[in-house]
Amino acid sequence: MTLTVLFAASDANWAEYAAPLRAALDEAGLSARLTRDADPAEVDFIVYTPSSPAQDFAPFTRCKAVLSLWAGVERIVGNPTLTQPLCRMVDPGLTEGMVEWVVGHALRHHLGMDRHIVNPGRVWDPVCPPLARERPIAMLGMGELGTACARALSALNFPVTGWSRSPKTVDGIPCLHGSAGLDQALSQAQIVVTLLPKTPETENTLNVRTLALLPDGAVILNPGRGALIDDEALLAALDAGKVGHATLDVFRMEPLPQDHPFWAHPRVTVTPHIAADTRAYSASRVIAGNIRRAVAGEALLHLVDRGRGY
Amino acid sequence: MTLTVLFAASDANWAEYAAPLRAALDEAGLSARLTRDADPAEVDFIVYTPSSPAQDFAPFTRCKAVLSLWAGVERIVGNPTLTQPLCRMVDPGLTEGMVEWVVGHALRHHLGMDRHIVNPGRVWDPVCPPLARERPIAMLGMGELGTACARALSALNFPVTGWSRSPKTVDGIPCLHGSAGLDQALSQAQIVVTLLPKTPETENTLNVRTLALLPDGAVILNPGRGALIDDEALLAALDAGKVGHATLDVFRMEPLPQDHPFWAHPRVTVTPHIAADTRAYSASRVIAGNIRRAVAGEALLHLVDRGRGY
Ligand SMILES: NC(=O)c1ccc[n+]([C@@H]2O[C@H](COP(=O)([O-])OP(=O)(O)OC[C@H]3O[C@@H](n4cnc5c(N)ncnc54)[C@H](OP(=O)(O)O)[C@@H]3O)[C@@H](O)[C@H]2O)c1
Ligand SMILES: NC(=O)c1ccc[n+]([C@@H]2O[C@H](COP(=O)([O-])OP(=O)(O)OC[C@H]3O[C@@H](n4cnc5c(N)ncnc54)[C@H](OP(=O)(O)O)[C@@H]3O)[C@@H](O)[C@H]2O)c1
Repeated sequence: MTLTVLFAASDANWAEYAAPLRAALDEAGLSARLTRDADPAEVDFIVYTPSSPAQDFAPFTRCKAVLSLWAGVERIVGNPTLTQPLCRMVDPGLTEGMVEWVVGHALRHHLGMDRHIVNPGRVWDPVCPPLARERPIAMLGMGELGTACARALSALNFPVTGWSRSPKTVDGIPCLHGSAGLDQALSQAQIVVTLLPKTPETENTLNVRTLALLPDGAVILNPGRGALIDDEALLAALDAGKVGHATLDVFRMEPLPQDHPFWAHPRVTVTPHIAADTRAYSASRVIAGNIRRAVAGEALLHLVDRGRGY
Repeated sequence: MTLTVLFAASDANWAEYAAPLRAALDEAGLSARLTRDADPAEVDFIVYTPSSPAQDFAPFTRCKAVLSLWAGVERIVGNPTLTQPLCRMVDPGLTEGMVEWVVGHALRHHLGMDRHIVNPGRVWDPVCPPLARERPIAMLGMGELGTACARALSALNFPVTGWSRSPKTVDGIPCLHGSAGLDQALSQAQIVVTLLPKTPETENTLNVRTLALLPDGAVILNPGRGALIDDEALLAALDAGKVGHATLDVFRMEPLPQDHPFWAHPRVTVTPHIAADTRAYSASRVIAGNIRRAVAGEALLHLVDRGRGY
């Protein structure tokens, strides 16, 4: 039997994924029709991004799973028409990219690079930074991405403390959880990385109260979601010198509006949601692998828990 | 018998080292007088930096070793009065700092950070960089520092090729040597790191001929020594677009003179010889450990080969 796989995403996504996804389906030994247009009643699987033209999932009566090309699923998880299983993206390429962005910006701030990158006064001031082992980092979110970043930072000797919803054991990385755990992690962190999903619980995790717990001059890296941080509280903490710098990849509104104060702030760096991209070749294999599992009656990987929201 | 250890370095060095070196000598169980002023004929060991007031080593007739606080010994190795064994510094703290500087700046260029750090036009252009696994790096010099940097870059998936004087085997890192090896390493490198000692052979390793071998837009990181690169050739290669950026920590003259074209060049970053500092606590243990070895009749560690010059 030939499966029908609906590619429900943008033209740009299609240009990128048509060939690798076709190849991955073939490689997985699946007889599948990969299409952008099908009778909903005949669709077996939906490959999805938020730009999907299909947002009402009720007509997809035969659909066995909706497979997100994105790691963050906050824009679909609450969709009341979605009764099919939802899988998020866990892609080795995406994880590698995130590790590179987080480690790169952590080292940038750790080494104080900016003062050398922009140095119109030609100041030669040979003061060495401390070693990474003297620079504690808090990793908020210890899922696929947070754990990979924590391990990479720890391999460079940064003392990393993890924080997640549930208790966790990770070799060499002390892990905290719950609200008291958050306060403890923040109170020691010179760099804070936010890699939480956006859910009602995680919104404004960094707010007036929690930012006040940080040591003066702490740096914030947010490659998670804009809503994890209260923008006004962050700007106030930057102006008060509590937060030394914020490097932000994600925003409540994207592209970040031209008149948003983050653009103008001398101690904010904006990166345009590029921390980690799903890579078409590896992500296509993840999608095809999950379809193969479903067809074989095996459990789906990376299933989203609708109750938790991630 | 109480040893006499002459601390032959600057006032600033003394302020930093007096306490840790005293502690390390005690910890090594050595009965030693640590002094900045002694009758040369009574000195057993000299702790040295190029700022040393003593530059004529002939009167130090009893001296068993000169122990450099610096990793690079080009300013003493050719001293004709030096007949005593010379040891260079191999310090875990120094190595860690170098790894952080090299990995940090490699990721900075890999991720194209500068265009986000300075973005007055508020350009939102969400183009992800390639993955590190797609960014080949050549590590020129595979000694203590080069090998540690190569391993750390390789752990982040950068394909690293090493190059050294003698053939070498390092797990997971293809190593080349000799002049043909250099040409091969450079012809594939998108990032080149120079971690060679300054010797007559290594001077101008990057010159008009070798820079021309690089792929267009390659980035150069020089935390080794200024003389490894022909300044004029580098400036020409930058202007021709052959070299995309150079981040330089070391210079033929330091501090880099205010009118040197490197300061003004839009695609040169100057860091003020801060890539890696000897850390007083760990370096003092290395010095004390070597003194203990000499006293016990064991072979000295990190002995400099006068013939090779490093
Ligand atoms: N900027 C980008 O380019 C980009 C790219 C990809 C992803 N992202 C973002 O990164 C996020 C994380 O991705 P992931 O793959 O690592 O997700 P994941 O594997 O689901 O991990 C999420 C982590 O957050 C923790 N968490 C969730 N709710 C929490 C709460 N209320 N309190 C404390 N911890 C909580 C989870 O705790 P438990 O372990 O206890 O469940 C888990 O450790 C995504 O949701 C997405 O928003 C951004
Ligand atoms: N910027 C800073 O803050 C800073 C701090 C510390 C050190 N440094 C610099 O870093 C340099 C390297 O330190 P290290 O501790 O790694 O030195 P090292 O252990 O002596 O290693 C030197 C490496 O260079 C190679 N080499 C020497 N001459 C060569 C030639 N003619 N052709 C090809 N390869 C050659 C050696 O090859 P073999 O393995 O075959 O011998 C070895 O791999 C120091 O000399 C110093 O100049 C800079």
